[in-house]
Amino acid sequence: MAPNELFQYSVVNALMDGVANKGLLISTLLQNGDHGIGTFRHMVGELIIVDGVAYQMKSDGSVTSVDTSLDSSVVAPFAMATYFEPAHKTTAVLADKADLFGLLSFLLPEAHNLYLAVRITGIFKSVTVRTVGGQSKPHEGLAEVGKHQTSHTFEEPTEGVIIGFRSPDYMQGVSVAGDHLHFLSKDRTRGGHLLALASEGEVNVEVAPISKFHLELPVHDEEFNEAELKGDVAGIAAVEG
Amino acid sequence: MAPNELFQYSVVNALMDGVANKGLLISTLLQNGDHGIGTFRHMVGELIIVDGVAYQMKSDGSVTSVDTSLDSSVVAPFAMATYFEPAHKTTAVLADKADLFGLLSFLLPEAHNLYLAVRITGIFKSVTVRTVGGQSKPHEGLAEVGKHQTSHTFEEPTEGVIIGFRSPDYMQGVSVAGDHLHFLSKDRTRGGHLLALASEGEVNVEVAPISKFHLELPVHDEEFNEAELKGDVAGIAAVEG
Repeated sequence: MAPNELFQYSVVNALMDGVANKGLLISTLLQNGDHGIGTFRHMVGELIIVDGVAYQMKSDGSVTSVDTSLDSSVVAPFAMATYFEPAHKTTAVLADKADLFGLLSFLLPEAHNLYLAVRITGIFKSVTVRTVGGQSKPHEGLAEVGKHQTSHTFEEPTEGVIIGFRSPDYMQGVSVAGDHLHFLSKDRTRGGHLLALASEGEVNVEVAPISKFHLELPVHDEEFNEAELKGDVAGIAAVEG
Repeated sequence: MAPNELFQYSVVNALMDGVANKGLLISTLLQNGDHGIGTFRHMVGELIIVDGVAYQMKSDGSVTSVDTSLDSSVVAPFAMATYFEPAHKTTAVLADKADLFGLLSFLLPEAHNLYLAVRITGIFKSVTVRTVGGQSKPHEGLAEVGKHQTSHTFEEPTEGVIIGFRSPDYMQGVSVAGDHLHFLSKDRTRGGHLLALASEGEVNVEVAPISKFHLELPVHDEEFNEAELKGDVAGIAAVEG
């Protein structure tokens, strides 16, 4: 796959419908990008791919690099990845996620209806993340799983990286419309799905527009085949916001 | 592109918003498939790709093969194409589009949430097609363009080919949910967007499931960048049904 083309496995509507029993091998996912986000079988924790290495961030606070050996069976029921090459690099003070949203729109006015790949590195004076603990029963949807998620706010200055994507509004349900970002500390001990942030002074913001989107849908997956996938815009906003 | 992977340029919501001033060169489109459908600049007529040849079917009833020479500037603002390799082949008597819909669902029960590529050849005792005449002003949306479309019913038995795709419901707005099919007579003189059909005895039905979807979004296209792309489910159903 060429740089800044987006690979995605499955659709967010499937997670909303609780389709999380199978998935794409993480080793296969890593053949489609070195920068990415996703989740794991039964939605146990958050996936982040930083510089080609995949990490699992669990609700017990643990962070582990994912076994991608040939005989590993670790899968992602949903994931997005790209070979990231920044088209714009800048530094900025970010008071909150809205600051970041505005900055990205300002940097790429021609990409209003495209995807964006985003990477932010630096020191954050406050980062709030959530990690989903996983399904408590088969087919439990993401909105319900999200109700028993764990959130953490790191109040001490924390160096780390934020990785993710902006998806255009018309892709809601396929992807997560808006900014969908995961955080991992530089020491690889803390992280999760990014809910809130405030930078400690300036951080490095790198972004690239994405106009080519490659979607792989699950096959040989009865749960996916039987899902209604009707979508739940309010539910996605509540759990992925 | 591998067989039975779907290439799509732009999204149907863009046509609904009247984004049709630019597009993908047909010669480039043909590098992504030998079986396909779409429309032309300013929505002037219907595009069908049969066995690697692209045809423009206009509302004046004319059908011409598209100039794909190196200096051609003919573009599609929206198109779908695949290198089609049938996974199932059967013969069937089709009384109407509902018969076809049911047959495809029956043939591929495991593809409920996938795309399908469809090709039907044979003699039809009745075929009704529409051809959009084009935008009457810039930015005119497809729903409005469709109001001054021309439809034709061929009542005499007509040999021909039906080419197209089924898109899953959750892709509505990106693609056209349901069966989206174009017709071209064997003598290449008549055709359009398929509204209704009845086969003359048995026809050949070929179909393949598609789990890999490659979407290319317009860049350097101000009209696309500025479009709202909010979607219009009822409008799509009315004009593409």
